[in-house]
Amino acid sequence: MPRPKVLLIGATGNAGGSILEALLAAERFDVEILIRPSSASKPAVQALTQKRGIPQRIVDIDLPSDELVPALANVDILICSLGPGPVSVTQQKGLVRAAKKAGVRRFVPSSWITIAPPHGAMLLTEETEEIYHEILLHSLGYTIIDVGYWYQTSFPPLPSGRTDYAIPLKETRTIHGDGTAPNILTEIGDIGRFVARIIADERTLNRRVYTCGEVLTENEIFAVVEEMAGERVERVFEPPEETQRKATLALEELAKDPHDIRKLIPVWLEQYRYSKYVRQDNRPEYAEYLGYLDARQLYPDLRPTSFREYFAEVLAGRARNPYA
Amino acid sequence: MPRPKVLLIGATGNAGGSILEALLAAERFDVEILIRPSSASKPAVQALTQKRGIPQRIVDIDLPSDELVPALANVDILICSLGPGPVSVTQQKGLVRAAKKAGVRRFVPSSWITIAPPHGAMLLTEETEEIYHEILLHSLGYTIIDVGYWYQTSFPPLPSGRTDYAIPLKETRTIHGDGTAPNILTEIGDIGRFVARIIADERTLNRRVYTCGEVLTENEIFAVVEEMAGERVERVFEPPEETQRKATLALEELAKDPHDIRKLIPVWLEQYRYSKYVRQDNRPEYAEYLGYLDARQLYPDLRPTSFREYFAEVLAGRARNPYA
Repeated sequence: MPRPKVLLIGATGNAGGSILEALLAAERFDVEILIRPSSASKPAVQALTQKRGIPQRIVDIDLPSDELVPALANVDILICSLGPGPVSVTQQKGLVRAAKKAGVRRFVPSSWITIAPPHGAMLLTEETEEIYHEILLHSLGYTIIDVGYWYQTSFPPLPSGRTDYAIPLKETRTIHGDGTAPNILTEIGDIGRFVARIIADERTLNRRVYTCGEVLTENEIFAVVEEMAGERVERVFEPPEETQRKATLALEELAKDPHDIRKLIPVWLEQYRYSKYVRQDNRPEYAEYLGYLDARQLYPDLRPTSFREYFAEVLAGRARNPYA
Repeated sequence: MPRPKVLLIGATGNAGGSILEALLAAERFDVEILIRPSSASKPAVQALTQKRGIPQRIVDIDLPSDELVPALANVDILICSLGPGPVSVTQQKGLVRAAKKAGVRRFVPSSWITIAPPHGAMLLTEETEEIYHEILLHSLGYTIIDVGYWYQTSFPPLPSGRTDYAIPLKETRTIHGDGTAPNILTEIGDIGRFVARIIADERTLNRRVYTCGEVLTENEIFAVVEEMAGERVERVFEPPEETQRKATLALEELAKDPHDIRKLIPVWLEQYRYSKYVRQDNRPEYAEYLGYLDARQLYPDLRPTSFREYFAEVLAGRARNPYA
């Protein structure tokens, strides 16, 4: 039997890079990457295509969906790892229609976020929902994969500053509420290992799945960090009303200027916090209620990186800042 | 163990009446009906409350949700069988919030329609989806129950006119396309029997379920009707493009006057036909893809009425026009 042909969009991103490496390492997929014409000459792309010889399909995904059909020929599984936002939603809705016509068997939209209700809490999930609706309208095979929040963006800085090199957002010294909200977390490097299992599994066809390294509260993360670093971490406490107020405010600011991407990013970040710490959505119990399969239960032999293992790498100076 | 307390809204309607009778007959529920103040004196209501002594709760469901909470005290299962439309959606979203606060364990929204994608094909499913989103936002236990189309509205009139008494819409002599689209159908009288099983079943909690008497094409229905009646039925053929055009036209007319309920009804009817016969959504395979459980598989001992059994009643003059 020939290997399934997987076409990955967004191979140079954080999640996309993790997925690409794991798909190649699995040695059970025929992997190609979709590259936009404007990106073909970028060093990060050429490192994959020229140096490593990964087959590419150069496609402008802003084209009308009918013109995308030939570019998806012979693809069994199409994985999108695009950034969020309205443009990405429009692109993916076009890709859904093209994928249906091209005979793609499984479409993995760009979600890769926390567990949250489809409507009313986070713009990011509302975007996934819009793509999901397009998928269902066209009876396209699909899997929605969410990953919780990343280890990489979930730990506080140290007074010594020695882990600052790995931290994209310094506000992670905040404890929201009483710090006891449990959160599903995945190490970026593990996303791909989970994906390589999920997309080869008939049980996950036409389902939602979440990956998980560990479920941890802010109090638990701070305790591990202090113990392993041997430093006392300063805590900033924020009451739930304040977290909620910030999310509302960010949305109000966006409403004044709906097309300003700089006003979108604060909405994403504040709504994440509101959903994770006030609503406490990003939990296994809520994921199960929403109909998600638990990748840990599906693949008990896949041992994800523990937070302690990851943080040991951070302390050793071997971690990578995902937004550097 | 005490019987679960079931509160039914819409007990005098077609589906609601079927549900009420089956819940009472099951003798395993503590059944009450919710009555709106404006309806309390209606003969159809008094036949249930005064004559049969069914306990009622008189509640104005247009009140703000906080004021509805006391009216839902001690209710385990809340079943809505309301008409469609924007007012009903607003009422049910309020009931969702009130039900969460009152501790209702399972909320059954008013769906009771055909299988269709959540967005892009039928306003009726988009309304269910809006209520569904409110349910998920509040983590309320739920079951969405769809029933396909009714036997009662799916058979053509006879030249002799002897079945006209039972037929609400005479256009059912139309064959759409080549008449081979399979459709999930349920006899109204069977809806309640299915519901009495579904709401007592933990497997259906937080799931979608569909009921089904038979899956039949228009050609099959016409053949049964002609054979049993011994009459030849005139067929009007309509190509798919025309069915689609009518649905589009009805929506365009509604757009000119979005609050005119008389323009909504043609949209509902034409979109049903478009979804059933052009898209061919109302099928077991599509239901499974959308994540529905099949009530026939859940309750193999529940033998639903066959279409032949139902049509024998029609020919015998013992059927009832649901919209008489």
